[in-house]
Amino acid sequence: MSKEIEKQKHSLAHLMAAAVLKIRPEAKIGIGPATEDGFYYDFGNISLNQDDFKNLEKEIHSLINKDIPFKKRVVSKEEARDIFSDQPYKLELIDDFKDEDLTVYETADFIDLCEGPHVSSTGEINLAFKIDRTAGAYFKGSEENDMLQRVYGLAFETKEDLKKYIENREKAKKRDHRKIGQKQELFMFDEEVGQGLPMYLPKGAMLRHLLMNFALNTYLDHDYELVSTPHIANEALWEKSGHLQHYADDMYGPLSVDDRKYRLKPMNCPFHVKMYNSRSRSYRELPIRWAEMGTVYRYEKSGELHGLTRPRAFTQDDAHIICTGDQLKNEVLGALKITEYIYQTLGLTDLIFKLSVRDPEKKEDYFGGDEEWEKAEKALENALKSFGRNDYIREEGEAAFYAPKIDIDAVDAMGRRWQLSTIQIDFNLPSRFKMNFINEKGEEETPFMIHRALLGSLERFLGVYIEHTGGSFPVWIAPVQAWIIPISDRHEDYANKIKNELKKEGLRVVVEGVNETLSKAIRNGETQKIPYLIVVGDKEEKSEEINVRFRGENKGSMKVKEFLLDLEK
Amino acid sequence: MSKEIEKQKHSLAHLMAAAVLKIRPEAKIGIGPATEDGFYYDFGNISLNQDDFKNLEKEIHSLINKDIPFKKRVVSKEEARDIFSDQPYKLELIDDFKDEDLTVYETADFIDLCEGPHVSSTGEINLAFKIDRTAGAYFKGSEENDMLQRVYGLAFETKEDLKKYIENREKAKKRDHRKIGQKQELFMFDEEVGQGLPMYLPKGAMLRHLLMNFALNTYLDHDYELVSTPHIANEALWEKSGHLQHYADDMYGPLSVDDRKYRLKPMNCPFHVKMYNSRSRSYRELPIRWAEMGTVYRYEKSGELHGLTRPRAFTQDDAHIICTGDQLKNEVLGALKITEYIYQTLGLTDLIFKLSVRDPEKKEDYFGGDEEWEKAEKALENALKSFGRNDYIREEGEAAFYAPKIDIDAVDAMGRRWQLSTIQIDFNLPSRFKMNFINEKGEEETPFMIHRALLGSLERFLGVYIEHTGGSFPVWIAPVQAWIIPISDRHEDYANKIKNELKKEGLRVVVEGVNETLSKAIRNGETQKIPYLIVVGDKEEKSEEINVRFRGENKGSMKVKEFLLDLEK
Repeated sequence: MSKEIEKQKHSLAHLMAAAVLKIRPEAKIGIGPATEDGFYYDFGNISLNQDDFKNLEKEIHSLINKDIPFKKRVVSKEEARDIFSDQPYKLELIDDFKDEDLTVYETADFIDLCEGPHVSSTGEINLAFKIDRTAGAYFKGSEENDMLQRVYGLAFETKEDLKKYIENREKAKKRDHRKIGQKQELFMFDEEVGQGLPMYLPKGAMLRHLLMNFALNTYLDHDYELVSTPHIANEALWEKSGHLQHYADDMYGPLSVDDRKYRLKPMNCPFHVKMYNSRSRSYRELPIRWAEMGTVYRYEKSGELHGLTRPRAFTQDDAHIICTGDQLKNEVLGALKITEYIYQTLGLTDLIFKLSVRDPEKKEDYFGGDEEWEKAEKALENALKSFGRNDYIREEGEAAFYAPKIDIDAVDAMGRRWQLSTIQIDFNLPSRFKMNFINEKGEEETPFMIHRALLGSLERFLGVYIEHTGGSFPVWIAPVQAWIIPISDRHEDYANKIKNELKKEGLRVVVEGVNETLSKAIRNGETQKIPYLIVVGDKEEKSEEINVRFRGENKGSMKVKEFLLDLEK
Repeated sequence: MSKEIEKQKHSLAHLMAAAVLKIRPEAKIGIGPATEDGFYYDFGNISLNQDDFKNLEKEIHSLINKDIPFKKRVVSKEEARDIFSDQPYKLELIDDFKDEDLTVYETADFIDLCEGPHVSSTGEINLAFKIDRTAGAYFKGSEENDMLQRVYGLAFETKEDLKKYIENREKAKKRDHRKIGQKQELFMFDEEVGQGLPMYLPKGAMLRHLLMNFALNTYLDHDYELVSTPHIANEALWEKSGHLQHYADDMYGPLSVDDRKYRLKPMNCPFHVKMYNSRSRSYRELPIRWAEMGTVYRYEKSGELHGLTRPRAFTQDDAHIICTGDQLKNEVLGALKITEYIYQTLGLTDLIFKLSVRDPEKKEDYFGGDEEWEKAEKALENALKSFGRNDYIREEGEAAFYAPKIDIDAVDAMGRRWQLSTIQIDFNLPSRFKMNFINEKGEEETPFMIHRALLGSLERFLGVYIEHTGGSFPVWIAPVQAWIIPISDRHEDYANKIKNELKKEGLRVVVEGVNETLSKAIRNGETQKIPYLIVVGDKEEKSEEINVRFRGENKGSMKVKEFLLDLEK
């Protein structure tokens, strides 16, 4: 979001507060910032509903048309308390400020405690906006404070963008992966098994298996090696890795075996480090690239769980690259290329690259020395440049405490951004576990370590992917690629014969709709988004052909051979 | 073991005791039964060593040559106490007997408390035998009793069999999968991670992956469907399944999440039942065959852990078949056929089938009614017969409490039997979870459920398989199929070019030995049991060929194309 757009959105928030105070003078105002898709403002002591939205919009338009200046004024805390004497939330915010001097912004008779910046006059606001919805929000985000009513506005550069956004949101609602997951019988949750623990029904398990194999085989093609480690480890390991000290809130509680405490793994890294350290290593072995489809368990509050996109158990397409400093850039570049290949193959072509580096003002908050940080940040930056993505976003202060990283967002069919991939350097584990290799000079040297998960988590990716595709998966990854529907009982043998022929060719195909009418079977198949519906009856049996429908389109009758040649894989 | 052979072995045990008493009259005798590979006898108050074995053998041969009759005599407890007045262990055994009348067997001046049967005279013994080794064994197997010295003898029908057995045992010792696992870097254990928790290094992980995919794809080809479930579940589930009541000793301790207790899964079944029960099912959907490569965690005492063959974490090639009574036999037959196919493909061609049925005397000890037991036992029996294995072993009283089963032993290259596969029927879970389907009459009916794991556990199978093959895996499943060895530095580019060509053809191949002499690289490759060693130097580069060695045999130079055609897959 550009500074200019942010100014406009923030100014719209002020105008909305002004409008609310006009129709509800008793309102107590909280705060009102810009957001990704617009703005909001929190109010106490009132309760607005949909019917008020039109009036508010009208009032805001009128304020814009009047082209009223936004006047900034510096005031002392004392003055501020006077100005907001009947606004308790503002008074509390004033008390929270450290500085003696505060700033307020005035528009006509509305005045707000605010750092700005704003447009200089309301007439400058040319965003298309809409009051959207309300929700409850605690003052200052704390459950101990009052619950206020948060009023959300949407704001976009053009009316078309605003319309598109609302349409996409409607579409996304219909495509909720939890609904599609149920309709297509992909996965389920069960209270007696446990919250956030997905169970994959046959079609979902096959979809996940195909996705996993696609990713894994891609890594193997690129000279990664597969490794495999258990789901639990002794607390001794998690202490050495630092997880128990710094990550315990996200971990499941301990379980005891032979009076020793174990933990479910929240990450795979310490196991890979253990394997690396199992014998001495030479520079000639580097880079080592170890991939694992590792199922990890992380605690999430039950209120934050959300289908596959936020479960408690998920499988990472995880890999650790252990390399020398000189190899760092090329290894990151390799990972970027694989990421692009994977996402393009899956039909997610719009990727956003973010480079997270240290906050240069707070270098002391990070683990590791200046030299390695500079080397690592430079390597990531150069990799992005070599990759041809000079449009990456540089985010200062967003690095992990243990090293800089590249995060990659994918934009889905509804224009939503999902952070999925991550490529992180780590100075912490090599140091904690005293990892080393013998360099060309015969000396011990500490290697660099890269964590990378390109799909991120299979679960989260699948959740996003189900919504992105609306459950209509590309043929190559569709868990069931074709149904063969016999018109009546007597065509079942022929249907099975065709099934076996297609199975032999590696297709995932079942005979369906035996006890239903043809039209119902086709309708079902289309609801289930089965790519190919193959109908066989007297005519087909006689001519040894099949009648093929592809996503609603009738392709007519053909020989199995023709079908296979024509197959969209 | 035939009754005749068993009699001879048991008689040899007596003769050994007689021989021991001759050279060590102070010995206190315990018990001495026949075993699979011979016999043993337990002694107190003495300590024999290797040097005594020859003398004992000589004495036993002399007793055989004298052709002394085995005289059976029925005695009262009172008489028995007199006979064994200086044998404290025998006196305790006499006290343990319920009956008033006991039997003793006499051979010349040796007399033993024994139910028999025995050969009628020592001259009948024609087995080839050898005193083998000693070990400690508690009297009556209880740690509270005296530790006795158990002396083992080997006994086989021919000298050749005995020799072969000893050779095989030596071979097996060299082929210990833990040694090969270390030498080939297949897997490792680490105290800080936890006992019995295998970590797979790249080659082991690939081997396991190939094995898993081979099994899984075989199941999918046979119309199984894949499912996938988490590694933990709430105790509520394990209570309903009965695991907490009956299986808790084999389970890991609880871990807490949100004040609810969870357990690592020791089995996958309850999850599959949950998925089955997630909606109503029709007879038309049956049989359902759900396969999962499920990693389970079971507690084993640390003293019982043994590499991959006895770990605490292992992955089952598990499947549950849910079907009607009428489908039962065919489903079992199908599983038998798949088992044979899988083992034959893997080169384990010698399988022994065991049918475990109820103890007909103790029907009340088993879960479920007579009708279903008879139906199930009949189905298993008929399946074995249709399968053409009338030589199956029927074991009465060996059924699980919840239903009858077929266990399958594989015989390895050293003649050792390993119980690996199991096909079990289960009446318990369908009843506990109230599973049902709507039958043709529109009524609710309880389905039958079959558990089957054909490799059993990937870990245990791999442990056996590594020893069976001595780490020299068939090319199709070898984790690394070929090394490409450049003769000197300047051939590295050519080696990489060949590598990429072969990789493109789907081969698992690496460039190795770059910094070693050629002879050392070849020796390494052979020690690592890499099937193909491909050497490239000036000559090969010039003629665009490769020099191929296959398991020690030089196949000469050839084009890559020729190599691919000739490839032993």
